[in-house]
Amino acid sequence: MDVAVLGLGLIGGSVLQALAAAGHRAVGFDADPATRATARTAAAQARSGARWQVAGTIRDALRDTDVCVLAVPFPALPAVLTDLAGYPGLVTDVTSIKEPVRELTGDLRYVGGHPMAGKETSGFRAADRGLFVGCAWVLCLEPDTDTADWLDLAGLITALGARVVPATAAEHDRAVAGISHVPHLLAAALTGVIEGNPLAASLAAGSFRDGTRVAATRPELIAAMCGGNADAVGAALDQVLETLQALRTELSAPDPVAALRPLLAPASAARAAWPPVPGDQTELPARKDVLLRLGRVGGWVTDVDRESRKVIAMRPESGRNSS
Amino acid sequence: MDVAVLGLGLIGGSVLQALAAAGHRAVGFDADPATRATARTAAAQARSGARWQVAGTIRDALRDTDVCVLAVPFPALPAVLTDLAGYPGLVTDVTSIKEPVRELTGDLRYVGGHPMAGKETSGFRAADRGLFVGCAWVLCLEPDTDTADWLDLAGLITALGARVVPATAAEHDRAVAGISHVPHLLAAALTGVIEGNPLAASLAAGSFRDGTRVAATRPELIAAMCGGNADAVGAALDQVLETLQALRTELSAPDPVAALRPLLAPASAARAAWPPVPGDQTELPARKDVLLRLGRVGGWVTDVDRESRKVIAMRPESGRNSS
Repeated sequence: MDVAVLGLGLIGGSVLQALAAAGHRAVGFDADPATRATARTAAAQARSGARWQVAGTIRDALRDTDVCVLAVPFPALPAVLTDLAGYPGLVTDVTSIKEPVRELTGDLRYVGGHPMAGKETSGFRAADRGLFVGCAWVLCLEPDTDTADWLDLAGLITALGARVVPATAAEHDRAVAGISHVPHLLAAALTGVIEGNPLAASLAAGSFRDGTRVAATRPELIAAMCGGNADAVGAALDQVLETLQALRTELSAPDPVAALRPLLAPASAARAAWPPVPGDQTELPARKDVLLRLGRVGGWVTDVDRESRKVIAMRPESGRNSS
Repeated sequence: MDVAVLGLGLIGGSVLQALAAAGHRAVGFDADPATRATARTAAAQARSGARWQVAGTIRDALRDTDVCVLAVPFPALPAVLTDLAGYPGLVTDVTSIKEPVRELTGDLRYVGGHPMAGKETSGFRAADRGLFVGCAWVLCLEPDTDTADWLDLAGLITALGARVVPATAAEHDRAVAGISHVPHLLAAALTGVIEGNPLAASLAAGSFRDGTRVAATRPELIAAMCGGNADAVGAALDQVLETLQALRTELSAPDPVAALRPLLAPASAARAAWPPVPGDQTELPARKDVLLRLGRVGGWVTDVDRESRKVIAMRPESGRNSS
């Protein structure tokens, strides 16, 4: 396929390189001239069969492409979408919130996407064509989504090594509120325990390091992510706060050790059973209801047969983890 | 020195092996015969200069030793301390709470200790003689601590590669409540976001994995740790809850992105500046007030000169991290 990638940060740059490595014609663009230069230099050094192109304008990047991947930060999307007006191809994105993007895309042939991949580092220099191998990549299915478009994108993405997870934008936003956005707020709050306490900072080890890792993310990114999904993040945070308040109450019980234990047991079992083990492969008809049900039980698509309108799907085995 | 180590789990086993490797006569004991057998077999396979012994009784382990390291879980301490009655040597421990242990040690020559080292795995088979290299190891200083005893232990421990951090038991318990105990409660609460939500479990990636890692710890261990330090953990959790409530409020603000950002900035800066960079070495007199002040500013002891009653100390450089 011929694919344009707009925005060449960590995710966009990785998508560009992965698509080129998978044999597609991949053309990137970034608003920053220095990033374009970096991406061009890297392309010249890539293996000849896996070279991407870098265009000087959005218009040049889009020319003769079938698919456009929007990989700019959420605040930059409205301006880029203006440039896409009238684009006849398929449009997807990699933004970490899906309902707000859906509201911006108007009449475009849009299928929302979100690869659950990331790194501490950012920018094209950190890009990695293997970033998506084994990662979950949500592709949104809505009442107005064209299933054939969805299957085209699912085929493109499974070929990069990702597990394609079908979900509605609303389901996605609720799920990531809990597993991705709230962890950033907990990490920020936990970091407070070393502020003004050098002794605590010098004793802090593994449980502090891991519990606060994502707190070092730039505050404007955490604010954009959580604030852009505020309702779902608020609901997920309320659930976590309710558990923490219950634990706080038991810390004041006459025998806190005995009182805390039953509250902690379910989480210990749930964490030990995560991540889930893949179960058997099954073939499923590529119908919206079937695909969405697959996503809701924790399953994903590993391959697509566009002709027969079937997908190869995996469901997790219950009660076991894969670590 | 001649050192007995009682309790041969991950920490006790690692202490035993590290002491033997450092040239001390190290004798271990564990109440579990299978653990003793494992430790004996491993000793026979160790390099000849670094072999530890395994005694069949506590009495045999203690015979002719200068130091006894208590490495049993906190609930097992009262019984073991009964067996130590009249022991003339120096007693230390590795328990993660210090005031409650201090209250149990009566007339023994006791100096509380806590190596800030750990692993996901447990038991003697997971023991590692290099576990303490670079780790912070608190050694408690109280009004009734004999400074010469403290220096003897500090010398023993710095030789294992650890940074010895002087602190009172109360200071230690407050610090670890925030950096070690509360993270376990946050991890348990966060794990709840995947319970009953297979879609969320299948999308969960790095920030969930790291934020919940320690939730898989056995619930009775988390309960014992947090419940045994309930007052300090309650106070630290209150501080974290206050921050989370403030973040929750801003999620409902008219512009949550703008409202969240200033609340997140200090944590991002604090986490980016952690862990602190070691500054210059200095020589300090081994006086209690000097040592405790060193611990309070985030410093530690790297070496001990017992004759001149001096220590080599490091202080963190402010405003930079070492990662």
